[in-house]
Amino acid sequence: MRTENQKDGKNQAQNGKNQKNGKNQRELREHRDGRDFRDGKEAAELRDNKREQTDRKKGDKRQAPDSQPKVKIIPLGGLEQIGMNITAFEYEDSILVVDCGLSFPTDDMLGIDLVIPDVTYLEQNLDKVRGFVITHGHEDHIGALPYILQKINVPVYGTKLTIGLIENKLKEHNLMKSTKRKVVRHGQTINLGCFRVEFIKTNHSIADAAALAIFTPAGIIVHTGDFKIDYTPVFGDAADLQRFAELGRKGVLALMSDSTNAIRAGFTASERTVGKTFDAIFADHKANRIIVATFASNVDRVQQIINSAYRYGRKVVVEGRSMVNVIGTASELGYINIPDGTLIDIEQLKNYTDEQTVLITTGSQGESMAALSRMASSLHRKVSIKPNDVVIFSSTPIPGNEKAVSKVINELSQKGAEVIFQDTHVSGHACQEEIKLMYALLHPKFALPVHGEYRHLVANRGIALSMGIPKENVLLMSSGDVVEIGPESCRVNGHVPAGGILVDGLGVGDVGNIVLRDRQNLAQNGIIIVVLTLEKYSNQLLAGPDIVSRGFVYVRESEDLLDEAKRVVDEAVMDCLGRHLTDWGKMKNIIRDSLSDFLWKRMKRNPMILPIIMEVE
Amino acid sequence: MRTENQKDGKNQAQNGKNQKNGKNQRELREHRDGRDFRDGKEAAELRDNKREQTDRKKGDKRQAPDSQPKVKIIPLGGLEQIGMNITAFEYEDSILVVDCGLSFPTDDMLGIDLVIPDVTYLEQNLDKVRGFVITHGHEDHIGALPYILQKINVPVYGTKLTIGLIENKLKEHNLMKSTKRKVVRHGQTINLGCFRVEFIKTNHSIADAAALAIFTPAGIIVHTGDFKIDYTPVFGDAADLQRFAELGRKGVLALMSDSTNAIRAGFTASERTVGKTFDAIFADHKANRIIVATFASNVDRVQQIINSAYRYGRKVVVEGRSMVNVIGTASELGYINIPDGTLIDIEQLKNYTDEQTVLITTGSQGESMAALSRMASSLHRKVSIKPNDVVIFSSTPIPGNEKAVSKVINELSQKGAEVIFQDTHVSGHACQEEIKLMYALLHPKFALPVHGEYRHLVANRGIALSMGIPKENVLLMSSGDVVEIGPESCRVNGHVPAGGILVDGLGVGDVGNIVLRDRQNLAQNGIIIVVLTLEKYSNQLLAGPDIVSRGFVYVRESEDLLDEAKRVVDEAVMDCLGRHLTDWGKMKNIIRDSLSDFLWKRMKRNPMILPIIMEVE
Repeated sequence: MRTENQKDGKNQAQNGKNQKNGKNQRELREHRDGRDFRDGKEAAELRDNKREQTDRKKGDKRQAPDSQPKVKIIPLGGLEQIGMNITAFEYEDSILVVDCGLSFPTDDMLGIDLVIPDVTYLEQNLDKVRGFVITHGHEDHIGALPYILQKINVPVYGTKLTIGLIENKLKEHNLMKSTKRKVVRHGQTINLGCFRVEFIKTNHSIADAAALAIFTPAGIIVHTGDFKIDYTPVFGDAADLQRFAELGRKGVLALMSDSTNAIRAGFTASERTVGKTFDAIFADHKANRIIVATFASNVDRVQQIINSAYRYGRKVVVEGRSMVNVIGTASELGYINIPDGTLIDIEQLKNYTDEQTVLITTGSQGESMAALSRMASSLHRKVSIKPNDVVIFSSTPIPGNEKAVSKVINELSQKGAEVIFQDTHVSGHACQEEIKLMYALLHPKFALPVHGEYRHLVANRGIALSMGIPKENVLLMSSGDVVEIGPESCRVNGHVPAGGILVDGLGVGDVGNIVLRDRQNLAQNGIIIVVLTLEKYSNQLLAGPDIVSRGFVYVRESEDLLDEAKRVVDEAVMDCLGRHLTDWGKMKNIIRDSLSDFLWKRMKRNPMILPIIMEVE
Repeated sequence: MRTENQKDGKNQAQNGKNQKNGKNQRELREHRDGRDFRDGKEAAELRDNKREQTDRKKGDKRQAPDSQPKVKIIPLGGLEQIGMNITAFEYEDSILVVDCGLSFPTDDMLGIDLVIPDVTYLEQNLDKVRGFVITHGHEDHIGALPYILQKINVPVYGTKLTIGLIENKLKEHNLMKSTKRKVVRHGQTINLGCFRVEFIKTNHSIADAAALAIFTPAGIIVHTGDFKIDYTPVFGDAADLQRFAELGRKGVLALMSDSTNAIRAGFTASERTVGKTFDAIFADHKANRIIVATFASNVDRVQQIINSAYRYGRKVVVEGRSMVNVIGTASELGYINIPDGTLIDIEQLKNYTDEQTVLITTGSQGESMAALSRMASSLHRKVSIKPNDVVIFSSTPIPGNEKAVSKVINELSQKGAEVIFQDTHVSGHACQEEIKLMYALLHPKFALPVHGEYRHLVANRGIALSMGIPKENVLLMSSGDVVEIGPESCRVNGHVPAGGILVDGLGVGDVGNIVLRDRQNLAQNGIIIVVLTLEKYSNQLLAGPDIVSRGFVYVRESEDLLDEAKRVVDEAVMDCLGRHLTDWGKMKNIIRDSLSDFLWKRMKRNPMILPIIMEVE
């Protein structure tokens, strides 16, 4: 096993090579921000200086591996689940945070809009946090920024499209003025305290995705972000395999690799294959209107739909708020190329025949409020589905959305539309062979699989083992783990708070387990309120008990049942008053228990029972 | 296009052939119930007599197709969804009902346990209903019987295992005494009023499945039930293709074919292929405990697990209530063969080493209360998952269950178990090539696809068209349609009530849309109750207004918000009282509106607000 120290000489030699090979890279970096970003020579100098410093430090204690530099890796989310990706890297006075995503509520989080990570640890170490480094512009990597930046106001670094999409969010939350943003190009390197971070080109289902090579005092840690390897991408270059190989030769301490598709064999197909399918469908349906639903953020997919539309002489309408936003941003920033006169407004649809138009729309996941769902259920104000329509789902249902998608497909079918969903989507995540390729290029000492549920992390571990990484060098982290990694060791050493903070409307964190449990109970069984008014001193019953229910039974058709329930409550109250009970807590319990018993015996149901006693002085 | 009339001569000649070929079939029929079931010669005679009668009738009116005999087909469920299969066939004074299934609640049916069909039409025609003819023992075909039989007490006909499983339900609901049950064998025919029904062997994911050939005055209608074609089934014979071919030659008026897998190309693999996978897994994991989760009703699957266990010298534990029940029934009735000494009680597990045991368990769909889920989350009292375990999911998630299944897989993985789910399941439903085979054998005049969501029915229609059935002869029915079918025509002519009746606990139909809407609102936002006591005549405020909330915010950490809300309510009440408002409905509206406005502006939430005014005389 090679170590960072042993390879220092080699690295320096290689470093020179790097700078020569770096010409192409350098061309990409022309608009760099001189103050914040160093590259080429500058970066190399810095690198050498730092290394010397580090070497000196190490030199003092070379015989004591325990005192070798140890970097902390602290995932605050993105494990145990798909989504809410956020990982802190800490060394001495520096913390950098990779990604700051949200996740969508699970089925039991009733009424919750979204979930953001618990960043208590970052708040407690606010002075150390140097910035957020964002790998790409998907919600599960940028979505929590508007919430977290309000507490942790540090610069945000990302590639051009990523920053563009983040800015859309900042505008919405009125955070543009207060937030520093820095655009970084692939191949460029930024310095954040003790860390240097290089952005490396990868492919994904959104343009401008980056892997990060994080140069730390303990060694190079590569974080893939979400990635796939597309040799023939629609926009820009293939993943920078040569740079990964170079780093691999240099010596990579740890690989943190996307695990989302680690249970899938083979290679993820190129995005271009979908374009071919579109062409074939357009050729086969020259007399139909074509509607394509896809993910708003998949700019390359949209590009390919536009390409097919242009090729077949069709005008394109873009529909759905997020689709319009993303395409607007992508178009402004040059990530999508729309031939003049191709895009028309939805109002102009009526000026064209069916075979002259294509609609690109949101709603590929069956989201009830999205444009396609509204078209399918006749709620869309401007587009009605008709028998001549062909609807292409350019997506696969995200787990949990299968039924919603089926519902939309059924509704479209009932309106006579033809629905197509075969070969119209490819994943944005690396399958097993691509993950192997990444391990082969980087040859990391340690493997720390990220991005996925536990079963995906386990599958990634299997791949790492099959690539020759020793079992003891593969670590499956949990959110909140503090992983200490040094040139020779990698282990969990402590924990910090981690978990999801629930966002409901404007409220952040005011709905927790107690409220959720109440909502679940209310959802399952409804509520019965028993209300009565007593005179404070005499305990005389002034009004009630009255029974009011919601979500329990259809009251008009259940009069007998409710009459019986009323009698049960009356008896319980009379019993309490007869016994001169003055502890109202007890009285409430007696009312609750007797009504609850009655309902369970009578109908095997368990509504929430809420007795309210009012007192009149 | 051949018609029933034109082929009468041919049919009679073929009839003779039938009786000769029928030898094998006859062997199956030895225990027939002489009074209710006729077969072989008897049936043929009856058939000929009836046909002559029919021919005479037809003869009278041969020139008037409108007066040709018309049978009504009335699906009361099973379309627009998977599940709740039930279809009535009516002619003059006779109604027979095929299947009587339940469906499971959709996500928006909060708190609902199950859904049964609306059989108002059958109740209105109670004297006509001759019996329920059941195709197989799955919940979506038998599950509503215990509810419906209480209103429509007619005999139930089915094959041996099917009746056995129905009897389990009848016992649970205390309906054994009041329900007539008749076991029918494949190849046997029963008479129900104007109809004769022949049970024909098919294959499915439960043993003893049958297709039905319904001999009606208008012609032969074949209902496939749920089916696949398995040339090498684990138990019993392959589907009786020869009989289907014979009927096809005779002339089939209509085919009602299972559409569940109509969107899948190719052929569904034989159940035996799963057995081979089991053997391979058992061979590869000789040192591990093996746990297999599958559908309780898939008796052949369980047989194959037992076969592999026996081959590899392992003892078998069966765990989970429904699994124990079904295997008990299947074993009693001879549908499963368990070598002596193979089955052990769960209490005996401790007497064996890991490599000596196999557990067969429920929970393959991630159902939270099922045995496997309880093992995975450490809630099972007798089995703990450990690193040496191999857990096989012999199932695929039913749409909607994906997340629940993933959750269980993650929990099992976290406990160190290896989870296997590849090649460990085959579907029980016919794919496109099998459906084509059925059309090819039966050559029906009309196609009426059944069993599936609308998109599946559309796919089945596509298959029918590709098999040469004219477009106008394929009818996609909706639940509640009254389809009139005669030798020359098939069309919807009227509608009857149809839909789901919700069952919640012991309540059947007392939860409807209003209650569900309340539950959804409660689930999303919780409830705020505003309660105050007024003196009846003076309108003087005696107590309150008090605010009580559930499922809204965590009260202890939201004191400020609730104080503000209280002030808003106080103001609204004072305003009403100041204006001497005596209409309490109005006062409630004012309270509701002002609090609702406040909460929306303040936190973008919309809880249910329930003002309660008590009056004291």
